[in-house]
Amino acid sequence: MEKLSLHNPLFATYVIAATLMILKAVSMSWLTVVRMMQVKGGFRSPEDLKKTPLNPEPNPQQLGPNEPVDRIRRIQMNDLENLPFFLVAGFLYVLTQPSLLLAQWLLYGYVVSRVLHFAAYFTGQIHEVRATFWSVGSFILIFMTVRTLLAALGY
Amino acid sequence: MEKLSLHNPLFATYVIAATLMILKAVSMSWLTVVRMMQVKGGFRSPEDLKKTPLNPEPNPQQLGPNEPVDRIRRIQMNDLENLPFFLVAGFLYVLTQPSLLLAQWLLYGYVVSRVLHFAAYFTGQIHEVRATFWSVGSFILIFMTVRTLLAALGY
Amino acid sequence: MEKLSLHNPLFATYVIAATLMILKAVSMSWLTVVRMMQVKGGFRSPEDLKKTPLNPEPNPQQLGPNEPVDRIRRIQMNDLENLPFFLVAGFLYVLTQPSLLLAQWLLYGYVVSRVLHFAAYFTGQIHEVRATFWSVGSFILIFMTVRTLLAALGY
Repeated sequence: MEKLSLHNPLFATYVIAATLMILKAVSMSWLTVVRMMQVKGGFRSPEDLKKTPLNPEPNPQQLGPNEPVDRIRRIQMNDLENLPFFLVAGFLYVLTQPSLLLAQWLLYGYVVSRVLHFAAYFTGQIHEVRATFWSVGSFILIFMTVRTLLAALGY
Repeated sequence: MEKLSLHNPLFATYVIAATLMILKAVSMSWLTVVRMMQVKGGFRSPEDLKKTPLNPEPNPQQLGPNEPVDRIRRIQMNDLENLPFFLVAGFLYVLTQPSLLLAQWLLYGYVVSRVLHFAAYFTGQIHEVRATFWSVGSFILIFMTVRTLLAALGY
Repeated sequence: MEKLSLHNPLFATYVIAATLMILKAVSMSWLTVVRMMQVKGGFRSPEDLKKTPLNPEPNPQQLGPNEPVDRIRRIQMNDLENLPFFLVAGFLYVLTQPSLLLAQWLLYGYVVSRVLHFAAYFTGQIHEVRATFWSVGSFILIFMTVRTLLAALGY
């Protein structure tokens, strides 16, 4: 079967996991926007203090630290540290022709780990909870990457 | 026609948009370098205060906030939040075999939206202008991603 | 030979370089974790000051700047500004069918440049050393990207 066809269940599995993760990443940008509008703060650029229809009453504190907005930014930063590498590693991994079942567990497992990581971070759970979900995703990423590297080296 | 051939107009469209966006991202790093040399500041590491040929007269303020440099860093951060996901989403989208014309509008439209976003941010336009260009790019990214996800799910 | 087969030496070269770079990026996250546990600080979220088994004696300074941890975060940030673009540019570049020898020099050269950049940054070498290794990688990335763009444009 053609490797990059959506009729190939292995590739379709990757595409579903990858697009869900891209939508997750993009959502963080929009969630930052929503939070900034709710708290009318968490801005970053001097020009954001100009009086405009969306910011009718500017004040310098709008450029200061703002925990509700900064929390989303930290979650997004965690995405940037992880998702781009997952997107490439998952793609290369399915090209090594793993079993469909294993690929589904790994790729969908990663998606679930990131959704749980988001839920834990968003609601301010203790570090141990957040770190556990992050670690599960990281181990999946490492496993797929090492497996792909070994395959490329001929093992 | 072969999916990943540069003779395939659909794939060539993606490759042109993707490489332009990669060059845009890399340019931000070099623009940061240029700005740091112009203002002799905006450095980040303690060792950057050592006396060297490129920094003959070090002083502690070189590690402080520096708006001309920080502006480029914010633009680059916005790239990191968007471009890696566009690069993967665009690739998967052209694999779903959309019409060439639609793909050209979306992929080249994204490139244009990012160039305009850069111009607005670089020149310090009000938030509304910058946000408009960012939103256009974000909607294109979301559209391509959702379309790809639906195709992978068999719709 | 099939373009995306690991039996294709050109594609295998890319996969080896790409997986090594992904492992490098993931290592930075784990190195941050190790450093945070060593210095018991460099945390970022208010909830990280709750008393837990891993943080039995919380104190507010744990959320302040912490150079050993922040150094790894700066190295990781540099990865995020570069590696995702290398991963895509390298993939598209090998699809343009360059000579195997040139591709090996460029892709493995990039890997070596990033390992040396890490070593220089980690040990706090002067900016000139770190910048040199970063520039080598950046030039390789630009070369591959421009070459791919020209190929897609038909040159």
